[in-house]
Amino acid sequence: MTLRLSLANPAQNEELPRVQPWRGLIHGYRRYLPVTDQTPVITLHEGNTPLIPVPAIAREIGRQVQVFVKYDGLNPTGSFKDRGMTMAISKAKEAGAEAVICASTGNTSAAAAAYARRGGMRAFVLIPDGYVALGKLAQALLYGAEVLAIKGNFDRALEIVREMSQNYPVTLVNSVNPYRLEGQKTAAFEVVDVLGDAPDWLCIPVGNAGNISAYWMGFNQYHQEGRSSKLPKMMGFQAAGSAPLVTGEPFKHPETLATAIRIGNPANWHKAIAVRDASQSSFNAVTDEEILHAYRMLASQEGIFCEPASAASVAGLLKVKDQVPEGATVVCVLTGNGLKDPDSAIKFSENNFKQGIEPGLEEVAKAMGF
Amino acid sequence: MTLRLSLANPAQNEELPRVQPWRGLIHGYRRYLPVTDQTPVITLHEGNTPLIPVPAIAREIGRQVQVFVKYDGLNPTGSFKDRGMTMAISKAKEAGAEAVICASTGNTSAAAAAYARRGGMRAFVLIPDGYVALGKLAQALLYGAEVLAIKGNFDRALEIVREMSQNYPVTLVNSVNPYRLEGQKTAAFEVVDVLGDAPDWLCIPVGNAGNISAYWMGFNQYHQEGRSSKLPKMMGFQAAGSAPLVTGEPFKHPETLATAIRIGNPANWHKAIAVRDASQSSFNAVTDEEILHAYRMLASQEGIFCEPASAASVAGLLKVKDQVPEGATVVCVLTGNGLKDPDSAIKFSENNFKQGIEPGLEEVAKAMGF
Repeated sequence: MTLRLSLANPAQNEELPRVQPWRGLIHGYRRYLPVTDQTPVITLHEGNTPLIPVPAIAREIGRQVQVFVKYDGLNPTGSFKDRGMTMAISKAKEAGAEAVICASTGNTSAAAAAYARRGGMRAFVLIPDGYVALGKLAQALLYGAEVLAIKGNFDRALEIVREMSQNYPVTLVNSVNPYRLEGQKTAAFEVVDVLGDAPDWLCIPVGNAGNISAYWMGFNQYHQEGRSSKLPKMMGFQAAGSAPLVTGEPFKHPETLATAIRIGNPANWHKAIAVRDASQSSFNAVTDEEILHAYRMLASQEGIFCEPASAASVAGLLKVKDQVPEGATVVCVLTGNGLKDPDSAIKFSENNFKQGIEPGLEEVAKAMGF
Repeated sequence: MTLRLSLANPAQNEELPRVQPWRGLIHGYRRYLPVTDQTPVITLHEGNTPLIPVPAIAREIGRQVQVFVKYDGLNPTGSFKDRGMTMAISKAKEAGAEAVICASTGNTSAAAAAYARRGGMRAFVLIPDGYVALGKLAQALLYGAEVLAIKGNFDRALEIVREMSQNYPVTLVNSVNPYRLEGQKTAAFEVVDVLGDAPDWLCIPVGNAGNISAYWMGFNQYHQEGRSSKLPKMMGFQAAGSAPLVTGEPFKHPETLATAIRIGNPANWHKAIAVRDASQSSFNAVTDEEILHAYRMLASQEGIFCEPASAASVAGLLKVKDQVPEGATVVCVLTGNGLKDPDSAIKFSENNFKQGIEPGLEEVAKAMGF
C-alpha cells in the first residue's frame, strides 16, 4: 500500500483531480456495521449519493440559512431502500438463505429483487390481489422478482410473509428486518462526511418512521466517536391525510398522493417519538398541495426530480421556515427518484406544451415570446 | 487548509472511513475542461457514477476476463447527457444566454431543461407535432421545459433550432454544441481513476456517435498525461436495424426498440470511423433480440436496470466474446436509467406474476414451490 500526502479535500487539489473509488456502503463504513470478514458483500455500489445545494429554496427562507438535499433517489434502484437492502441481503446470504420474501408494492420490492437476484437468491413479493397496477411492479418484475397476489388485504400479506419466514428457508426483508436500519444509518454518516459536521436541522418525510430512526442512529454513532460536534434537530414531516405521529392517533384510512408515506399506523411509532424528544424537535403535517408545490419547485427551479413523498421534507421546511435559526445548515432528505412515478410528473407538471405551430422561424420565435 | 496523511485508497483505510465530497465534474476535472474562474458552474453534482462488476456476464466469457459496467444512468436526470449538459449550460450562462433550445424527444430534453432551469434560464424543446407521447416528455415538462410541437418532421425541427440560435438570444444545446463532448469525456477519466489504468476494451452503444468520440478524447487526454499506460480498443455496437457505421451506408428508415440509438445518419460519422481505426477496433451490429437478452440478464442476474439501448454494449460484448483476450479488463457503458422507459420493463420482463392465491400459509408455500 502506498502512502501519499493529500489535501483534506482531494477535489480541491488542482494537481491531481480524480474520483475516489466507491464500492458501496458496507465496504465504505464497514467498521460501523454488523458485518465480519465472513459476510459476503452483495452490493450495487449504493450510497455516496449527492448532497446538493438548493439555493432557490434557501432564498425563500433567507437569513443566511444554507439548504442542501440528500438525493437518495440516485441509489442503484432509485431509492434509499438500497442502503438497507445491501445489509439485509448480505446477511441473508451469510446465513445461507436461498430466497427472500417481502410484502410490498413499491420501492422495497424493487430493492429486494435487485439485491437478492444479484446474490443468486430468489425474491418473492406478496401483494393483495387487484391492489396494484402492473406499472408499479415493472421494475421488480424485470429484476426477476416472483410476485404472488393473494386474495386478502395488505395486512394479511404481511402476516403471511412473517409466517413463511418462520416456517420455510426464506428470509424476511420487510422493514422488521433489523439489518435494514443499520444500512440506512449510513446516509447520516455521508451527510456529516460531506458537510464536515452534522447539520443543524434534518428534514425528513415520515411514513413507517424507519428512516428517521436510522438517521438518528447514524448521527449519534458519529457524534459519540467525535466525528461531529453536535446532533441535528430531527424535523419529521407527514402528509396531512396520513399524520398519526402528528395527531397522536392511528389513521384508519390514510389518504395522500405521497403514496410512499401513506401509512396510518407506523411500525416504528415509539422509536420516532423517542427521536423527536431526544432531538428536541417537532413533527408537523404538510398538505398534498404543499407537497406538490415543493415537488414542482425542486424540479423547475433546482433541477431535481424526486418522488412526491420525498418533497414532503422540503414542503415541511418551507412551512416552518420562520423557526429555522439564522445561519443554520439544513439538510432535506429526498428518498426516491422522480422517475419511479412518471404518472405524477405528467399529472402535476405545468404542461407547458404548445402544439400545431407552423414550421417557420418567425412563427416559432413568436411562440417563444420573442 | 489542513493537511493529513492518507492512504492512496481512503476507502481501504479502516481507521477513517468517509465518503469524499463530490461537487460535479467541472469542479472535479476543472483542469481538463474549457472553463475559467469566470465560468458560473451550473451543476447537479453529475458524474462520479458507479463502475460495477458484473460477474454473471464475466462468467459467460470465462478465461479470467473481468467485466464492469459504467452505470451512467445514475446521473441526476438519469442519463449520460448530464455530463455534457453541465458544460453546455455553464458556458451558455457565461455567455449571457437567457434561454437554451434543443430538438429532442428524449434524454437530451430532460437534461437541458434541468440544467437550464437550475441556471435560471428558459428551456425550449422543439418536437414534431404528434410525434411523441406525453409520457416521454413528462420529465422535461416537470423540470419546466417549454415544449413546442411544429407541423413538420424532426429534421425541420433541427433546422429551426439552429436558425433560432443564430437569430435570437438563445443557445443551441443539441449535440452540435461543442461543450457537450468536453463534458462527456470525463466518463473516461472516471473509469481510469477507478481502475487505476485504462481498460483493454470499452464497449459502447453507438447512435449519433458523440459518446464514443467523447470517451476517446478522454482516454487520449489521460494517456498523454501519463495517467494510463494504454488506450482501450473502442468497441462500438449498433442495433442491426440502425447500423450505418457497420454497413457503411445511412439507414433511411432505422428501426430498433433501442430508441436512444435509432439514428440512420450519425452526426459524428467521420469522428467515429477515426476512433475505430485509431483504436484498431471494429464496430458490430446486435439484433433487438440480443439487446433484450442482455437487458433482461443485467436486471435479473446483476441487479442493474438500464435503458434497452444501453444494453447494446453488453449484448455486443457477449456476441464477440471469443475475441476478448484472456484476462482482459472490459468496461461496458450503460448510458441511461431503466426507469426512463417503464413501458419496456413491463413489455419485456418475464412477468413472473401469479394471481388469485388463497391467503393461507400452505397455499402460498405451494405457489412458491415449497
